[in-house]
Amino acid sequence: MSKMMKAAVFVEPGRIDLREKPIPDVGPNDALIRITTTTICGTDVHILKGEYPVAPGLTVGHEPVGTIEKLGSAVTGYHEGQRVIAGAICPNFNSYAAQDGYPSQDGSYLAHQGGCGCHGYLATAGWRFGNKIDGAQAEYLLVPDAQANLAPVPDGLSDEQVLMCPDIMSTGFKGAENANIRIGDTVAVFAQGPIGLCATAGARLLGATTVIGVDANPHRLDMARKWGADVVLNTNDCDVVSEILRLTGGRGVDSAIEALGRQSTFESALRVIKPGGTLSSLGVYSDDLKIPLSAVAAGLGDHKINTALCPGGKERMRRLMNVIQSGRVDLTEMVTHRYALDDIGEAYDLFANQRDNVLKVAVRPAG
Amino acid sequence: MSKMMKAAVFVEPGRIDLREKPIPDVGPNDALIRITTTTICGTDVHILKGEYPVAPGLTVGHEPVGTIEKLGSAVTGYHEGQRVIAGAICPNFNSYAAQDGYPSQDGSYLAHQGGCGCHGYLATAGWRFGNKIDGAQAEYLLVPDAQANLAPVPDGLSDEQVLMCPDIMSTGFKGAENANIRIGDTVAVFAQGPIGLCATAGARLLGATTVIGVDANPHRLDMARKWGADVVLNTNDCDVVSEILRLTGGRGVDSAIEALGRQSTFESALRVIKPGGTLSSLGVYSDDLKIPLSAVAAGLGDHKINTALCPGGKERMRRLMNVIQSGRVDLTEMVTHRYALDDIGEAYDLFANQRDNVLKVAVRPAG
Amino acid sequence: MSKMMKAAVFVEPGRIDLREKPIPDVGPNDALIRITTTTICGTDVHILKGEYPVAPGLTVGHEPVGTIEKLGSAVTGYHEGQRVIAGAICPNFNSYAAQDGYPSQDGSYLAHQGGCGCHGYLATAGWRFGNKIDGAQAEYLLVPDAQANLAPVPDGLSDEQVLMCPDIMSTGFKGAENANIRIGDTVAVFAQGPIGLCATAGARLLGATTVIGVDANPHRLDMARKWGADVVLNTNDCDVVSEILRLTGGRGVDSAIEALGRQSTFESALRVIKPGGTLSSLGVYSDDLKIPLSAVAAGLGDHKINTALCPGGKERMRRLMNVIQSGRVDLTEMVTHRYALDDIGEAYDLFANQRDNVLKVAVRPAG
Amino acid sequence: MSKMMKAAVFVEPGRIDLREKPIPDVGPNDALIRITTTTICGTDVHILKGEYPVAPGLTVGHEPVGTIEKLGSAVTGYHEGQRVIAGAICPNFNSYAAQDGYPSQDGSYLAHQGGCGCHGYLATAGWRFGNKIDGAQAEYLLVPDAQANLAPVPDGLSDEQVLMCPDIMSTGFKGAENANIRIGDTVAVFAQGPIGLCATAGARLLGATTVIGVDANPHRLDMARKWGADVVLNTNDCDVVSEILRLTGGRGVDSAIEALGRQSTFESALRVIKPGGTLSSLGVYSDDLKIPLSAVAAGLGDHKINTALCPGGKERMRRLMNVIQSGRVDLTEMVTHRYALDDIGEAYDLFANQRDNVLKVAVRPAG
Repeated sequence: MSKMMKAAVFVEPGRIDLREKPIPDVGPNDALIRITTTTICGTDVHILKGEYPVAPGLTVGHEPVGTIEKLGSAVTGYHEGQRVIAGAICPNFNSYAAQDGYPSQDGSYLAHQGGCGCHGYLATAGWRFGNKIDGAQAEYLLVPDAQANLAPVPDGLSDEQVLMCPDIMSTGFKGAENANIRIGDTVAVFAQGPIGLCATAGARLLGATTVIGVDANPHRLDMARKWGADVVLNTNDCDVVSEILRLTGGRGVDSAIEALGRQSTFESALRVIKPGGTLSSLGVYSDDLKIPLSAVAAGLGDHKINTALCPGGKERMRRLMNVIQSGRVDLTEMVTHRYALDDIGEAYDLFANQRDNVLKVAVRPAG
Repeated sequence: MSKMMKAAVFVEPGRIDLREKPIPDVGPNDALIRITTTTICGTDVHILKGEYPVAPGLTVGHEPVGTIEKLGSAVTGYHEGQRVIAGAICPNFNSYAAQDGYPSQDGSYLAHQGGCGCHGYLATAGWRFGNKIDGAQAEYLLVPDAQANLAPVPDGLSDEQVLMCPDIMSTGFKGAENANIRIGDTVAVFAQGPIGLCATAGARLLGATTVIGVDANPHRLDMARKWGADVVLNTNDCDVVSEILRLTGGRGVDSAIEALGRQSTFESALRVIKPGGTLSSLGVYSDDLKIPLSAVAAGLGDHKINTALCPGGKERMRRLMNVIQSGRVDLTEMVTHRYALDDIGEAYDLFANQRDNVLKVAVRPAG
Repeated sequence: MSKMMKAAVFVEPGRIDLREKPIPDVGPNDALIRITTTTICGTDVHILKGEYPVAPGLTVGHEPVGTIEKLGSAVTGYHEGQRVIAGAICPNFNSYAAQDGYPSQDGSYLAHQGGCGCHGYLATAGWRFGNKIDGAQAEYLLVPDAQANLAPVPDGLSDEQVLMCPDIMSTGFKGAENANIRIGDTVAVFAQGPIGLCATAGARLLGATTVIGVDANPHRLDMARKWGADVVLNTNDCDVVSEILRLTGGRGVDSAIEALGRQSTFESALRVIKPGGTLSSLGVYSDDLKIPLSAVAAGLGDHKINTALCPGGKERMRRLMNVIQSGRVDLTEMVTHRYALDDIGEAYDLFANQRDNVLKVAVRPAG
Repeated sequence: MSKMMKAAVFVEPGRIDLREKPIPDVGPNDALIRITTTTICGTDVHILKGEYPVAPGLTVGHEPVGTIEKLGSAVTGYHEGQRVIAGAICPNFNSYAAQDGYPSQDGSYLAHQGGCGCHGYLATAGWRFGNKIDGAQAEYLLVPDAQANLAPVPDGLSDEQVLMCPDIMSTGFKGAENANIRIGDTVAVFAQGPIGLCATAGARLLGATTVIGVDANPHRLDMARKWGADVVLNTNDCDVVSEILRLTGGRGVDSAIEALGRQSTFESALRVIKPGGTLSSLGVYSDDLKIPLSAVAAGLGDHKINTALCPGGKERMRRLMNVIQSGRVDLTEMVTHRYALDDIGEAYDLFANQRDNVLKVAVRPAG
């Protein structure tokens, strides 16, 4: 296995280039996947811009769809040629963190280096592809802990049908799962990018009966309606906090989901939840957050704030593909543009600049 | 029932005076309690200082122990002369909020007045005694929704044994209950005043096996050991965040309980919880809070922040008195000083200035 | 208020007759409702047949839709003429049971009479209408604990749209809520009568992606498809247990909901749940149940069995009406036949004999 | 590694003999443990008697304490010579079952062979040691999935202090965890053998304030008091159901834990739980179970029945050893007798016949 493959590699801030790299060797617990479709995440754009640091030379990307090329000697129950996906977060389920209920956080426990007074939390924990190890924007991807992470794609589902499962759908749905939704709830989802749209779909899937989609982009609000919002509010057209309180008769929403990562949306989300309500946060923040005293009743409102990192693992992927297969949620329209891996530079350009109403791009090594 | 009684009344900032007031009339769902023992809460001191506004003329106090003097016509299953307590928060369990799972928040739902852009949350919701209606630092107390709120004191328990149940113990234990404690957890409790001490006792009662008590006051740290802390840390002697990370091998604690209401303790609590951990907040804050980006892994740490208002109701009180009766937790030493109601001015003076290692004072109308 | 009204009264086994009765007096916590629409439940048929004993002379029925005729002096926030429903189970939310989290069970706690070795559980606990007090198949209904139980009907919803909320929908949805459903689950619902159909709709509403409806009646299986079943199985056409295990690749379903009350369905439900799975039981059983050793892995399968009594209260009703109003679930087709109260004898005859594919009948005092 | 070791081997019903066996080879994900202390479980007695079938030639035992002799090539973070334990249930945490939340059930999912109409549940699922693979009553034990299952013993804890962690304590505590215990609960524990005693200790550890221990053996009831029972009831001295209802004022207990595996205790446990209460079952049953109609309010009592298999994994073991280390629970007195491995025949004889108030025996290969 000394052959070479093409891979999209972080070179320096501003540059992700296609390079030749050796196809990796396969250890006993690994699997080598031939990528058939992958995509670009907002996080990859942060890497491109140098806002999120990764090692120069690292292959980026964390959303793989492909076929098994080679299995490690200790991996059983799969066969070569089988179509699979793996989660963007690819945990070691043998870890303390996983057994404690937080598989995505493996790598962060026991990580403190001491002396610094900080928490010692290593960057984004269980996220390995395109962060700590080579990622999915390549012809081949080495999947560690393959026994735990390879999820067979059911017959009849296309690559694009399952392309959102590894990250966008798993994250967005987790936002809904973290929101403590009960039958008859009203849920507001702040920001309707791909993750927010999945949170909207997830909130509806879990029994919320009034889902309020919030964004500043009319196209995304149209998409929000398509994926399950009952009401959409454009932040340019109204004071969203007042409007939501008006819509709920002053009661506030049962839960709000934050899917942008800004102070403004975080704060608005806090201001619209009822006493006893939940703010489920999906945002990746880049600044300290402020909790206004009045938004949390001085600490006496029985409020809950839950944050999340995208869940991974084959059981999670199996469940998300069940949702797709059942037809409950159809995310294929989220793929708005398609590129060959050779043209991934163009794909980054379009996606980073959010042109042409792009939601997600499909990137195919085979063209 | 046109007789008069003595009551500690808020007059103006800086003045709570004993006054004569009519003993209140009893409506069909009320009960009139003759107070035998009550106490002063930190919140009462905020009222005294004018930091928390109440109407001039209001009787303060929300921690009643007494006997039933008269029952409303629709209240059944009790008898006059029966010894009872009632929670500091005295909810209307018929409300939407209560049926939704948040009885303490009744009065805050449907409360928005519109136009202001704020949440519309009315001050501290279901807290009525000494806030919205006359309170317990008096010879008599009118309990609304008595059927839901009168809790008989089991034979053999003294007034002082149950005096902490209405507020301090209910709040502190709620902090432990909100901390998602599992067998074998490590829990840090920030601040060891009466509520923090009860949170310490509650965390131990729920199965935490390493309880870390934090305070700046050596006497309170001694008390923390008495009520269940395995380790105590004085914030004057060490960097508590670093020390807790060291004690936990860099892993962080499973949960932290904040029992002071300051940015510094809130922030330290966030910094010591593991990824996946819970910050259970009991503090009544007086300023906006800051969440440092590094303390929450930029939003990706699967962290949970839960706030709480003291639970009330007769079932809650019954359970807390069970704890006392079983001997699992003994809070009688928390009563460090005793006063007649006639001398409540002295009691406020001692308590407000935290002299003489005061924890809680017992105040007795009968002297 | 000494006027008379018509009411369907249990006379003796085999006879429910229309009788004249005085319109009841209204106490301080009551409300008098003028019934506009009600319906007949399977339980009423058990009463008719003498299989479930009630006092002769009692008005039967527990599913009220109507308008407020008169409010008790202590009931606030409603107005006469307002359209309301009340749950079939009409709890006293001031009770210990309600504060403990089980409002439907009030009346059963503290009920043991001693000596008999039995549990002392009083028949069906919090169920009062048509069981312990006069019920809804009448021109007027007295609602106790009205502050907790009157639920205003949103404008725009017809009587028949909300007619299932008090019992059938609340019970069926509780079956789904008790099934621990997570996104991507497979859920089997045994029996597709009105409650089973609502359980089917509820399981889908909560995120189950494969809902399997089981019954012996082809018409009901057609209805199951309409209300959300992805797959239907006729017990006359296959061995349902084997077929479900085959459909799930031998894994079993995540949850099964029993909605009939027979040993055969209870046992089949147990046999198809996965290790770790949940059996949510809604059935009212008339014989002892058997748990086959092999169905529960000798007690080692991490199985859960949950039973339920229909939830009531105005917040529950509000949430269920939210579901109707949102259009997520439309139960109007469940009303297959309509009768005037004067013709309720005919309605019982049709319903008791399950003729003409009847699901539910609407009964209107005004004709 | 072709050396030989001594092992207690199931030969045929009635015979477990010490035999020489090759010390096993170590695969990449395995670890070889030199056993320093192990014990005999009631299940081993069932194997001995032929009541639970295992393959002739299998080494029995599933409660290992030892030191790492050799690590597989893919196992990291441990060192040879390190003192460790492993759970009696030794799950593959990469499995679907584990990721679904039921690691102990791995091996039972996807196990159906078809045609038989049974559930297809393979005997006791994730239990491997002394069931599907060679067990711990030997000089050496091969631990599969070692990365997930090896739990280092904290310095200062003796073998006997942690000897109950792998099975008895993990199972008994799971019974308490499955009982939905809240502060102030009353919990009855039926049967006070080693597992029931641990359930008693666990119920107390989780905040139950009245723990009622039930057994027919006065010595075990004395032990129950030692490990946390507030009240003990001898089934030979009273009608336990009536007595518990009397003690709880007719209300019933919040939860009951069944730790024997008989119809009589299962049924009594059902009869004493309150409406809304939980029966947490730990028993391994050998016959079909009956649920009396009157014990479950005909299915309408909001009752919950939870069964369990002993949890394993290094995080579980870590937490249980935390409990021991904290001094909250001390199980060393549970070791009533000690034997060399060479004398394990005597140990079985004593334990199988429950002579001399034996609770648990320690067996040491080194003598």
